[in-house]
Amino acid sequence: MPSRTNDPNRKSWLDVAENSDFPIQNIPFGVFLTKEDVITIGTRIGDYAIDLGALQQLNYFEGIELTDDMFMQDTLNDFISDGKKTWRLVRNRISDIFEINNPKLRDNAEHREIVIFKMEDVEMQLPVLIGDYTDFYSSKEHATNVGKMFRDPENALLPNWLHIPVGYHGRSSTIIPSGIPVHRPMGQTLPNGETSPVFGPSRLVDFELETAFITTDANIMGENIPVNEAEDYIFGMVLLNDWSARDIQKWEYVPLGPFLAKNFASSISPWIVTMDALEPFRCKGPIQEPMPLPYLQQKGKHAFDINLEVYIEPENVAPTLVSKSNFKYMYWSMSQQLAHHTSNGCRVNSGDMMGSGTISGPTQDSFGSMLELTWGGKNPIKMADGTERKFINDNDTVTMKGFCQNSSVRIGFGEVSSKLLPPFVRK
Amino acid sequence: MPSRTNDPNRKSWLDVAENSDFPIQNIPFGVFLTKEDVITIGTRIGDYAIDLGALQQLNYFEGIELTDDMFMQDTLNDFISDGKKTWRLVRNRISDIFEINNPKLRDNAEHREIVIFKMEDVEMQLPVLIGDYTDFYSSKEHATNVGKMFRDPENALLPNWLHIPVGYHGRSSTIIPSGIPVHRPMGQTLPNGETSPVFGPSRLVDFELETAFITTDANIMGENIPVNEAEDYIFGMVLLNDWSARDIQKWEYVPLGPFLAKNFASSISPWIVTMDALEPFRCKGPIQEPMPLPYLQQKGKHAFDINLEVYIEPENVAPTLVSKSNFKYMYWSMSQQLAHHTSNGCRVNSGDMMGSGTISGPTQDSFGSMLELTWGGKNPIKMADGTERKFINDNDTVTMKGFCQNSSVRIGFGEVSSKLLPPFVRK
Repeated sequence: MPSRTNDPNRKSWLDVAENSDFPIQNIPFGVFLTKEDVITIGTRIGDYAIDLGALQQLNYFEGIELTDDMFMQDTLNDFISDGKKTWRLVRNRISDIFEINNPKLRDNAEHREIVIFKMEDVEMQLPVLIGDYTDFYSSKEHATNVGKMFRDPENALLPNWLHIPVGYHGRSSTIIPSGIPVHRPMGQTLPNGETSPVFGPSRLVDFELETAFITTDANIMGENIPVNEAEDYIFGMVLLNDWSARDIQKWEYVPLGPFLAKNFASSISPWIVTMDALEPFRCKGPIQEPMPLPYLQQKGKHAFDINLEVYIEPENVAPTLVSKSNFKYMYWSMSQQLAHHTSNGCRVNSGDMMGSGTISGPTQDSFGSMLELTWGGKNPIKMADGTERKFINDNDTVTMKGFCQNSSVRIGFGEVSSKLLPPFVRK
Repeated sequence: MPSRTNDPNRKSWLDVAENSDFPIQNIPFGVFLTKEDVITIGTRIGDYAIDLGALQQLNYFEGIELTDDMFMQDTLNDFISDGKKTWRLVRNRISDIFEINNPKLRDNAEHREIVIFKMEDVEMQLPVLIGDYTDFYSSKEHATNVGKMFRDPENALLPNWLHIPVGYHGRSSTIIPSGIPVHRPMGQTLPNGETSPVFGPSRLVDFELETAFITTDANIMGENIPVNEAEDYIFGMVLLNDWSARDIQKWEYVPLGPFLAKNFASSISPWIVTMDALEPFRCKGPIQEPMPLPYLQQKGKHAFDINLEVYIEPENVAPTLVSKSNFKYMYWSMSQQLAHHTSNGCRVNSGDMMGSGTISGPTQDSFGSMLELTWGGKNPIKMADGTERKFINDNDTVTMKGFCQNSSVRIGFGEVSSKLLPPFVRK
C-alpha cells in the first residue's frame, strides 16, 4: 500500500521548497551521474538527488528482497522488472528514511555525505534502456485538428479512430533525456505546387506535447493483458517532447506512417513518477461513445489530472508560455492503450515506453503542437522580444512542464527541455 | 581482404554436402545453445556448428585483437560493434582453421571434441539483441501490386515512392528465430459492408518474403551516413518472414501505418551471412527513373543475386513451393535505405535490423505474399493434399529459403521456418 508515503501531511527533514515538484510524497526514480563519474539509480526530494545504490550498500533497504547491485546500475530495467510489490516497498522505505522524525540517516553526517547530492551537482541520464517505443494518437482534439487541416474538415476523424487507440512504432535509439540539444533535421520535402521533391533542412520543426509511460515485463509472446489488469504493468510516467518535422512528415507518411519526420529525436523528462504517486490525481476521462469493444471496456477511473505547459525560449529572451493543456483530456486511457497493444499477443518488456500522442485540450490555447496552436502557421505566436513563431526557430529552447496539484500536495515531473540547434555539419 | 576465404576452390576438412548452403566460403555468424546449456557465438560449416567461444579460449584467434570474452556471449552485438576490419580477420581465420590442409585443429581430437557440434545437437538463438527494427517497402512490384489492389489501379504507386525508400518502424520484442511457432493473432477488423468493427482471430494471416540486414554502430546522433559509405556499416543479412494479418492491417493502418497487423511476430533465419560472403553475387539493380536525389545516388553495383523460395507445408503433408523470387529485384538498395534512414541524423546502433519489405518479382509466381500470389484470395493455391490456400491456415508451416549460386560456389542462408498455431488461449 502506498498510503503512508502519499499522506499529504508527511514532511521530510530535507528542505523542500513549497512549490517543489518533488515533495516527499513523490519519490520518482531516475539515473544520474555524479561529478566523480559514478552512475547510480536515484530518487529526488526537493533539490536533492539521492543515491539509492549508496543507500543499499549502507543497508537502508534491509528486509526488502533485492539483488545486491539492484541500484548500482545505469538503467532501471531490472528494478522495474521486479514488479509492483517491490516498487512499493522501496518507495515506502525511501519515504520513511527521509521522514522528518526518522533520525537514522538524518543524524548520520557520514552517511548523508555519501548518499545526498545537490541536483546541480549531478547529470541526469536516460532512466531506462528502451527496447521498444510506441507512440499512440489518443487525443481526440489533436486527431480532429490534424484531420481538419490535412484531410476533410467535415470528416476530420478517420473511421477507425473511435474504435482503436491508434498507435505506431517509434525509434528507441534517438530517445534522449532533457537537456540534450537537437539538430534541425535534413530531409526530403515536396515544395508547394511542385511534383519533384528537394532535400534540405526541414523548415517546419515542431514540438509535440506528450506524456509517456514505462512498462514492466507484461506478458509472454502470444498472451494479452486484460484492460482491467493493465495498470499493474505500468511503472510510471514521464513528459515527452516528440519532436516532429511537419514538411518531411507530409511528404513521407503515406502509406506506412511517419518515419524520418519523427525519429531524429524524442526528448523525455528524466524522473519517472510512479503510478502510486499519481494515485491521488486519478479522475474520470472523457465519455467514450460509441462504447469500445469489450476488450477495451474498463471499470473505474483511468484518467489522471496532470497539468501540462509548454514554453518557447528564444536565445537570450525570456520564455513564453505557448500552451496549457492537461493529460485528463486523453480519450483513450493508458490501460486501454496497453490492452490494445497486447491484444494480438505482442510482447511488452521492462523498460518499454509508450507515448500518449500529442495532448491537445478543447481550447485553442491548450493545443499540443505549433501546427495546431498557429493553425498551420496562419496565426503566429508572439515571443517576449516581439518576434513571431509559426514553428520552432534555430536556437529556441522548448520546455515542457507537468504537475498534479490539489489543495494539499503537488506531484510534479520537473521538465523536459531542449534546444533546437541548426542542422548538423559534418566536420 | 576476404579473397582467400571466398576462393571457390578452397575446401574444408569437415564434410560438406555438395548442395550445402554452408561451404567453407560462407562462414556465417550466429548464436547457439548446446545440450549442456552453454550459449556461445558460433559459425557453421556443412552440418556442423562451431563454437567460436571455445576456439578463442583455445587460442585459435591469437594475433587478432579481441576482448577476452568476445565470443562467449549470447549476442553478436559487441563483435559487430568491433567493425568490418575485425569481422574480416575473424572470418578469414576461421576459414584457415578449417582449410583442408591445415592440421592444427584437424589433427587435434581433443580440441575438435570441444569446438565442433552436430547441427542437430544445438539450438539456434536470436543472433543479435535488436535495439531497433525498421522495415522498408522497397520492391516496386510489391508496392505496385498492393496499390492496384487497395488503391487506384491506374496510379498504383504513391507520388513519393520513386523518390524515397519508404520505410517504417517495426517491433523488436517479437522478432524470433526460425523454429519458434507463432499464434494466429486476435484483433479488430471491419467486416465487409459493416460500419462497426469486431474483435476476434485474424482470418487473413499472411507471410511476407523479405531479407533483412544487420548494422554496426553507424553514426552519432545528428550525423548522416553517405550512401557510398553505407555498405561498410552492414554486417550481414538474414531471411525474414514478416508475418502479417491483412484484415487487421486494413482497418488499423490509417493514418499512422501498420501496427498490430505486423507486431505479433517476425521470424528470421538464425545465421547472419556476411557481406563479404555475398560479394561474388553483387549485381546491377533495376534502373532508377527518375534519378534519385543526390544523397541517394550511388556508384557501382549494390544489388545482390539471392534466390528466394517460399514453401507452405500443411500438417503431415509435403511442402508446396508457392513463390520463387530474387533479392535483385529490389528497387532501392540497402545502401540507399541506410543513407536515407540516417539522412535526418537518426542514430543506428550495432544489432539494429532493417527489413527489405516484401520482395516480389515481375511474374506472378515470384510474388512475395499470399495477398499477391492469390490476388487478394481470388486465385487460391493448391497444396499437395488437394486443399487450397488463400492465406495461411492454422498448423501450416511457412518456410523461406535463400541462396546465391554461381558455377563454382553456393552461399546460402539456410531457412526461416515457423508454424502458425491457432490463437493463444489463456490457461
